[in-house]
Parts: sequence; structure tokens; C-alpha cells
Amino acid sequence: MTAGGAQRYNLTSYRVIYGDTDKMGVVYYANYLRWFERGRTEFLRQVGVPYGAIEARGMHFPVVEASCRYAKPAHYEDLIWIETRLASANRASLLFRYRILREGEDAPLATGSTKHACIDTAGKIFRIPGDLRQILQQALAPENSSAPHERSDEET
Amino acid sequence: MTAGGAQRYNLTSYRVIYGDTDKMGVVYYANYLRWFERGRTEFLRQVGVPYGAIEARGMHFPVVEASCRYAKPAHYEDLIWIETRLASANRASLLFRYRILREGEDAPLATGSTKHACIDTAGKIFRIPGDLRQILQQALAPENSSAPHERSDEET
Amino acid sequence: MTAGGAQRYNLTSYRVIYGDTDKMGVVYYANYLRWFERGRTEFLRQVGVPYGAIEARGMHFPVVEASCRYAKPAHYEDLIWIETRLASANRASLLFRYRILREGEDAPLATGSTKHACIDTAGKIFRIPGDLRQILQQALAPENSSAPHERSDEET
Amino acid sequence: MTAGGAQRYNLTSYRVIYGDTDKMGVVYYANYLRWFERGRTEFLRQVGVPYGAIEARGMHFPVVEASCRYAKPAHYEDLIWIETRLASANRASLLFRYRILREGEDAPLATGSTKHACIDTAGKIFRIPGDLRQILQQALAPENSSAPHERSDEET
Repeated sequence: MTAGGAQRYNLTSYRVIYGDTDKMGVVYYANYLRWFERGRTEFLRQVGVPYGAIEARGMHFPVVEASCRYAKPAHYEDLIWIETRLASANRASLLFRYRILREGEDAPLATGSTKHACIDTAGKIFRIPGDLRQILQQALAPENSSAPHERSDEET
Repeated sequence: MTAGGAQRYNLTSYRVIYGDTDKMGVVYYANYLRWFERGRTEFLRQVGVPYGAIEARGMHFPVVEASCRYAKPAHYEDLIWIETRLASANRASLLFRYRILREGEDAPLATGSTKHACIDTAGKIFRIPGDLRQILQQALAPENSSAPHERSDEET
Repeated sequence: MTAGGAQRYNLTSYRVIYGDTDKMGVVYYANYLRWFERGRTEFLRQVGVPYGAIEARGMHFPVVEASCRYAKPAHYEDLIWIETRLASANRASLLFRYRILREGEDAPLATGSTKHACIDTAGKIFRIPGDLRQILQQALAPENSSAPHERSDEET
Repeated sequence: MTAGGAQRYNLTSYRVIYGDTDKMGVVYYANYLRWFERGRTEFLRQVGVPYGAIEARGMHFPVVEASCRYAKPAHYEDLIWIETRLASANRASLLFRYRILREGEDAPLATGSTKHACIDTAGKIFRIPGDLRQILQQALAPENSSAPHERSDEET
């Protein structure tokens, strides 16, 4: 929490289903990228610019890079928290950072990030309009921000 | 709601993500079966026998038949309600029925069912133990049951 | 292929990956509907009307009903054959039937069907154009057709 | 293949289905990690140590890090080639690199990597047995290796 009280991260819950797991009994690694998407969608909704509304203005934010580090597995029926921050918002790109947590645990199961370009419907690089960029910059995670689940400094 | 007050259905919400949609701009048809699974998992949790606990007793309820009728498409960012009922609970099989609804609409987007065998860890047909069967039978949807979203007589 | 010997079904192979399985060690039930889609896509390609070309003409064939019976589980690294037939082609609807087989086995792991409406890009019911309908009707599975893996009379 | 000319990469094809795409009309970003898995599974099969056989010996190679750079989108019905190399094989970890290519194009749609730990069934770090390690080291991509689709030096 900052001076202005703005919540600079989003926490979204998700209950693991059978269909998320694989034969090792844990959540399949590609599904974490689905969680990242869920997190950033909820983040954007929370700061007042749902992604559907962004698309309605003719913009898309396709992922140009994604990465994930897997520390501990998630299991069937786990209640998962997806913690999403906006780490940077430049003229035509965004960087989100994520932490995947299990209810009741402090250490994240996984951390990751996605980098997004901003393009128009024709696929051309598009400068994020001023009003949207202002909202996004106000939603930026402060450096060294700490969230409830965080102890310290770490992650990615 | 019935005389005893028991809630004979489960309502679970789900927010559609981009990853659920396909190039027609609607939720891909196979994903409804994921929703059905989410619904019956929450149903079982609600009636006090989480599926994980059932598995811990050495039973599995694999799907032996599944069907879905698709009436209207679901879209990105839709808030979906999965309505789940247990339609029958026999000695070694279960039948669940589902309705997929969009927040604020009465007519379901889709209806469907899944039939499950009860097997042990070796894959053999297994008679559902008495205590579990009793819980499941008390959780059965009454015939002609109606839920908040239902108008009438409907489906399947 | 000759008049009398037209191949009225499509056989497409698929190798099961970890991501298709669930914690019971078998392919998750919703993924069979992905296989059905793969099968009918290859069927349409085989008879000369790839679905992409159909869409380019302003038509879509959304699934209005899907069903699957699961007889035996598929496992990681299994080589699967998807056998697809067109069972009916009416003025504005299609019915496909599928059998899922494991390499080297005769009895199908699963059987199923999908019914499709034909709609235009506005979502309105659309009568399948004559030339396309002719191709589809020639591709219809003869009644009592038998494919290499089939023994007899069976199913659905 | 001879000593000097060993094929140090695997090429596996995949046809994009509707279920792989999202509402932007392109393959959903998480599905590239499914392709990476398909690639490394086929790589291991090609060098004679199918992953199923590795698991049968009590080892698992869970992903501890994954990353992907997305350059150009893949579309419905595209024929995709997954090019997989083993970049390093240490005592208890493996690094795979991937390039995703579209049939007939030189520049990859995406590049990525996955890092794997070697653990036993109890989840403990496990030193890769000598015979397996020898096979893997012989399968290592030579530095600056070039594959048919590669022009030069680039990627990752």
C-alpha cells in the first residue's frame, strides 16, 4: 500500500481442477501461463481498464515474451492465488510480473513475467494513448513494493 | 430449496479468459467439459465429500459418458455460472447434470451431463460404500427440481 | 480411390503428450473433444474442402451437440488414431461420428459424435451451398460402413 | 547417421487446430509450452530413451524454468515444425532449446527453452545414472550447430 492508498497489485484466486493436472499429479507447466493471463486480466479490470475495453479501442497487447520459474508443484483442489503487478508501462510495451501462491503458504510456487507489445488491429506497433498510459503508470508497482504474502526482496 | 432446506445444486462462477476462447471469438467447445468438472468438484465439496477425500479412500469416478448441447456462445470476460445437480447415484455409478449460464441471463448457454463409474485403484468396478452413498443420495436433485435460474421444465 | 472404393472416413494419428493427461495418469476427458475436432478438420481437408476455405466463404459449422463414450483410457505416449466419418449432411447441419483407437488394438477407446449447425458470419442459420453440399454428400459414410479397425456392427 | 553427422536435433510436425487458437485468431501463447513438451518427448524417443522409459526407472525431469519469445503468430491449419535441441546435460539438470517454425518459412515463429531438474519419485534431486547421461551427452547439440531451417547464429 502506498501513500495514496492505491493497491498496486491484484490478487485473484483459482481452484485447481483435475483438468489442470498431469500424470505426475501436479499442475501441468503450461497452465501457469493461463494463470498469468487470468491475473493480468483481473489486474486491468481492477485498475479500470478491462482488456475487452482496450480491444474495443482497437488495441491488442500480445505477449512477446513469457517466462516462469517453478519452485514447488501445485496440486488438485489447491486454492491458488495469482498475484499480478505491472512492472513497467512504456510507450508501446508493458511488463507484468506474477507470483503464484498456495493458500496459507508464504513462499511462492512459481514466479514469472510476461512482456507485451501494443499493436493495432492491423498488427502494427501502436503507441499507447495518453489517457490509458496514465492509468497504467499510476498502476505501476512501486520499486521494492511488498505485498501481503511477500517477506522480503526476492523473486525474479 | 426443499423441505429439509438442503441445497440440491451447486452454483460455481468462472470468469472466461482469452485462453478459453477460439478464433471464432467464443469459448471452445471442449472447455465446457472442464466447466462440468469444476461444477461437480464444487458440488462434492459442498455436500461434504471432496473428490480428493474420495480418492484418498481408494475410489475414482471416471467419466464414462459425457454430452453437451450448446445453445449460445460464451465470450471473453463473461462471468459464467456452472449449475450442477446430481441426477442419480446408483451402486456403482453417478449421473451429474449441468447448466451453463451467463450472469444476468436466464436461458442457459449450454446444458450437459456426465455419467461416472465407480472404480477402485486397480480399475475394477467398486460398489460405493454405504456412508458415501447415503450422503450422495441425500444430495440428489429432486425430480422436477427448480433452481433460481430455471423457469420451468426444460432440457435434456 | 475409385467410385466403389471411396474412402469414406479419415484416419489421423496423434501422439499423447504429458499435457493431455491428468493425475489419474490417463488422458483427460475433455481432450477427446479436441481429438474429434482434429479428426473432422482432417476429414474435411481429405475430401477437398478444408475448414479454413469454408470459413473464407463466410460459413461456420459450430458444434451444437457433442457426446463421447469412454471405454478404455488412453495413456502418455500412446499412438492414437482418430477415425472420422460424416454420418449426415443436411441443408444446414452436419453430423460427424468418431472412434478413438490405440495403435495395435481393435476395440475403440472411445466413440462419439458432434452435430454442427451451418451459420453465416452474422450467426444466422445458413443453407449449405449446393457445390459444398454435393462434396459433403459424396463423402458421407455409407450405412453399415466398415473401416479397417472395425469388426462389425457395433456402437452408437 | 554417423559419428560426425549425428542428428543433434529433432523435428516434429504439428497441425494447428481450432482449439489451439484464441479470439485474436492466433495460437494462444501457453500452447507453445505444449509444443515444447511434444518436441522434447520426440527428441528423447529419437535418441533412444523415451520419457516413459525414464519414468519407469524412477526418474522425473520436471520443468523448473520455461521461457518463450514470440516473434510471429501461428494460425489455424498451419503446419508447424517443432525443432528441439538438448543444450546441456548436467549431473541433475537438462536444458532444452526450441524453435517453432511454420512450414515453408525460415524465420522461427518463436524460440524458447526449458530447464529440467532430475528428481526421484520422492521428489529428491537425483543424479542422472551414467548410462543415461552418456546417451544424453552424445545427443547434445554441438555449439553453433545449425539445422536445416537455420541461417546463422541467432535465436535466444
